Amino acid sequence: MNRVLVANRGEIAVRIIRACKELGIETIAVYSDADQDGLHVHLADKSVSIGPAPSRKSYLNIEKLISVAIEERIDAIHPGYGFLAENDEFSDACARNHICFIGPSGDIIRKMGNKIQARKAAVEAGVPVVPGTNEKNSDVEEFARAAHEIGYPVLLKAAAAGGGRGMKVVFDERELRNFYQQTQAEAAAAFGDGTVYIEKYIQNARHVEVQVLFDHYGNGIHLGERDCSIQRRHQKLIEEAPSPVLDSKMREEMHAAALALAKSQNYTSAGTIEFVVDADSRKFYFIEMNTRVQVEHPVTEMLTGIDIVKEQLRIAEGHKLSIEQRDVQFMGHAIECRINAEDPFRGFMPMPGKIEHLHLPGGTGVRVDSHCYAGYSIPLYYDSLLGKLIVHGQDREEAIVRMLRALGEIDLKGIRTTVPFHERVLGNPDFRSGKYNTRWVEESFLHELNKPVEV
Amino acid sequence: MNRVLVANRGEIAVRIIRACKELGIETIAVYSDADQDGLHVHLADKSVSIGPAPSRKSYLNIEKLISVAIEERIDAIHPGYGFLAENDEFSDACARNHICFIGPSGDIIRKMGNKIQARKAAVEAGVPVVPGTNEKNSDVEEFARAAHEIGYPVLLKAAAAGGGRGMKVVFDERELRNFYQQTQAEAAAAFGDGTVYIEKYIQNARHVEVQVLFDHYGNGIHLGERDCSIQRRHQKLIEEAPSPVLDSKMREEMHAAALALAKSQNYTSAGTIEFVVDADSRKFYFIEMNTRVQVEHPVTEMLTGIDIVKEQLRIAEGHKLSIEQRDVQFMGHAIECRINAEDPFRGFMPMPGKIEHLHLPGGTGVRVDSHCYAGYSIPLYYDSLLGKLIVHGQDREEAIVRMLRALGEIDLKGIRTTVPFHERVLGNPDFRSGKYNTRWVEESFLHELNKPVEV
Repeated sequence: MNRVLVANRGEIAVRIIRACKELGIETIAVYSDADQDGLHVHLADKSVSIGPAPSRKSYLNIEKLISVAIEERIDAIHPGYGFLAENDEFSDACARNHICFIGPSGDIIRKMGNKIQARKAAVEAGVPVVPGTNEKNSDVEEFARAAHEIGYPVLLKAAAAGGGRGMKVVFDERELRNFYQQTQAEAAAAFGDGTVYIEKYIQNARHVEVQVLFDHYGNGIHLGERDCSIQRRHQKLIEEAPSPVLDSKMREEMHAAALALAKSQNYTSAGTIEFVVDADSRKFYFIEMNTRVQVEHPVTEMLTGIDIVKEQLRIAEGHKLSIEQRDVQFMGHAIECRINAEDPFRGFMPMPGKIEHLHLPGGTGVRVDSHCYAGYSIPLYYDSLLGKLIVHGQDREEAIVRMLRALGEIDLKGIRTTVPFHERVLGNPDFRSGKYNTRWVEESFLHELNKPVEV
Repeated sequence: MNRVLVANRGEIAVRIIRACKELGIETIAVYSDADQDGLHVHLADKSVSIGPAPSRKSYLNIEKLISVAIEERIDAIHPGYGFLAENDEFSDACARNHICFIGPSGDIIRKMGNKIQARKAAVEAGVPVVPGTNEKNSDVEEFARAAHEIGYPVLLKAAAAGGGRGMKVVFDERELRNFYQQTQAEAAAAFGDGTVYIEKYIQNARHVEVQVLFDHYGNGIHLGERDCSIQRRHQKLIEEAPSPVLDSKMREEMHAAALALAKSQNYTSAGTIEFVVDADSRKFYFIEMNTRVQVEHPVTEMLTGIDIVKEQLRIAEGHKLSIEQRDVQFMGHAIECRINAEDPFRGFMPMPGKIEHLHLPGGTGVRVDSHCYAGYSIPLYYDSLLGKLIVHGQDREEAIVRMLRALGEIDLKGIRTTVPFHERVLGNPDFRSGKYNTRWVEESFLHELNKPVEV
C-alpha cells in the first residue's frame, strides 16, 4: 500500500495521516472550502479540494471522492468515523472501482447498519440481545403484545437510526399506541426507512463496548472493553477502560460474545460491538456493531500499546494479524475526555470561532489527539470536537487525578470549551466511585455544573 | 506531605509540579528575574522570586532557598536535576533545618559525587569498574606504571568533575607526562579539587545506565536500563530503552550490579547507575552514580508505566515501595530526543529568543515534556533545552518511525532548534541498525548534517 486517501477531516484525519506516516504510506487529504486551513491539509503529503462546506457537497459526495481517488491513483481509502465510514454504498463504490476500502465489505456494513438484521445475527451467534421484537414492520397490536411480555417501559426504535437518534421511551400501552405511527413517520423522513421495533428499556444502563480486530484469514482478537456511559443526549463525552462495572466473569463473557458475533459474520478490519449492561441485574445485551474505528479508540491503545489504525491499514493490505490474543496485555487504566467547542454552562451551545492561544498538556501518561492549533478557526459546519485528551495511569485513581491535572493545563483562548464540564465530572463522587449510568449526566449531574469545583 | 518547594526551573520544574498535583501536594515554585514568565511559575500553586538571573544568585543560592522554604512552611524540597540536585551541602542544609530533601542524604551525595570514592564503593559491592587507578594523589610515575599495565589509550580524569568535563585521552607515556600537571591544575581551578586518576579508554563505548528506586526500608527495584550513547561533547542528545547493545545475559548482570551497588550504600530515592559498555569485548564497567532524577527518566516511564517522580515523593514521605521487582513490566521500546534551542547547522550555537508560534506533536505513543509555549522567550542564562519528545512503540522500529513522524509535526517559529539533527540521526542507517557508540555523532555523523534527509 503506497498511497491512501483520507476521506475525512478534523482529528480523525490527522490520526489516520499519523498512522500512514509511521507505515511509510503517502497520504492524500481532501478538504472542503471551510477546511482549507485544516491541520490534516498541512500534514498530508498532498491535499485535494472537494467542494463547498456542507458535507453532502464534499465529505459525503461519493462520486467526487471516487473520482479524486482514481485521479490520484491511490491504493486505498480510509473513511475514519462519521461521514461515509458506515456507508455501504461508498464501500461498494470503492469495490466497483477496484479501490481498497479500509473497513469491512458493503454487505457487512449493510447488515450491521440495520439494527434488526444485526440483532438477528447476534441471536444466531448466541450473543444475548435486549428483550424485544426483531421482526420487520410488525403492526401496533403485535408491538403491544410484545411490550406487555417484556414489561414497560420499552424503547420504540427506528431500525435504520444510530447514535441515539430515532428512539423514544414509552411507559405504557397508551403511549405506545400514540407514538407508534409518529416514530415510523419520523424514521422514514430522517433515515429513509420507516421500520421500527421495540425493546426493553434498561433503567440503570451502562454502555460498554468491545474492540475487535479481524484479518482476512479468519483470525480475530479482542482488545478489551471500554465504558462509555458518560453521555449527554446519547453522545459519549467520557470513556474509560477497563469498565468499572464489569466483574471478571462478565468481562470474559462479553469479550467472548463480541468475538463470536464478529467471527460469525466473517468480519474484517477493526470493529466495535456495543453492549448495554443492566447494572442492577448484572446482565449484558448486544446493542449494535460499529463497523469502523471509533472516536474513543485511543483509550484501548493506551491500555494495550496496540495502534488500532495501523492494524486497520495492515489488515486492508492483506497482512495476517501480527498479534495473537495471548500477546495482548492490558496495563493499568485509561480515560478519554472529548473536548468540544461548546459552552457547558449554556446548554452546551456550540462555540465556533477562532482559537487565539492554545497550550496543550503534556507529561507522563498524557496523550492529545487534536487538529487544533493557535490561530485556527473552528468552522460552523461540522461537529464541535476540538480534540481528545487521553490519559493512562497505573490504576483508575491515578488516571483520574492525571486527567484532572492535564485538564488544568489546557490554556485555550478565544472560544469556550467543555473543559469545565470534564473537570467537574472527574471531581464528582459518583464518577470517582465508578457508579454512574448512561442517564447520570442528564439526570443527576447537569444541575451541579454551576457549583464550584472541588478537586 | 502537603507543600513542596520546587528548587528548579524549566521542564523539570514543570515535571515535578505535575507529579505533585497528581498526588494532591501543593507546590511552591521559585524563579529568577529571567524566569518571571516561566511555565513552572504559572502552574505552581504559589511562586516566590529568589533573585537575579545568574544561577549562583538564585537557583544555586542555598541560603535564599532555605529561607523561602522556612517562610513558606514547606514540607520538602525537590531539587530536580542540575543546579543543587547533587549538592551535598544543600542536602545537609535541608537536614539541619528539618526540611525533607527529596533525594538521598548529603553523605551519599558526597560519596557518589567523588569518583574515586564511588569507584571504591563499586569494587566493594562486586561491581566491575573500568580498569584504572583508584588512589588519590598518585604521582606521575605510578600513573605511568598503571597506564602501561592497562594499555594505552587511557583517560586522565578529574575526580570531582562530571558530565564529561575534566577528562583527557592520552595515547602514550609522553602525553601522559605532558598532560598530568595541566589536568591537575585545571581540575583544581574548575572543581576546587585537583585530584586526578586514570582509567582505560574504551574505543567502542556505549553509555548504558540503570534506573533504580530504593525506599527507607531497604527495598529496592530496578526499572531497566537506558542507552544514552548518542552524545555530542559528552552531552546526551537521544536516549532509548531497552539498549540495543545488551543481550539478555549482560542485561541481567547489569541490572543486578546496579541493585548491588545501591543496596551496599543503603541508597534511598531514585538513582541511576551509569555503565560504559565495551561493545567489542562485550564487557560493562561502572562509571558513576547519579543521585537524582535524570533528564532522560521519561524513557523508563514510557516503558514501565511507573511515574519515577511520584515514587521519589512517596519514598521521601516514608512510604514503602509500592511495586516489587516482579511487578515491573517492560513493554515495547521508548526513545527520547532532547530538543534544544541550538542551530545544529552552525556548531549547535545556542539560539535564545522568542517562540512566535508553537505546535507540538500528539497522537499514539507520543509524550511531550516541555516548559515552552507560544510567546515564551528563552532566557540567555540557562541550558538550551526546549523540551523532550518521548515516544513509545511496540518495538524499536515502530518507536523510530513514530519519533520521525512526531518530529515532523513540530511547528516552532521564531528560533532554530535541533529538530533537524534528530530527524537525520533517526533516519541514519547506523542508528537504525543500533550500531553506534558515544563518539559516533562527532566522528561519523556531524559531517552528514548538511546532506538532505531521507526518511
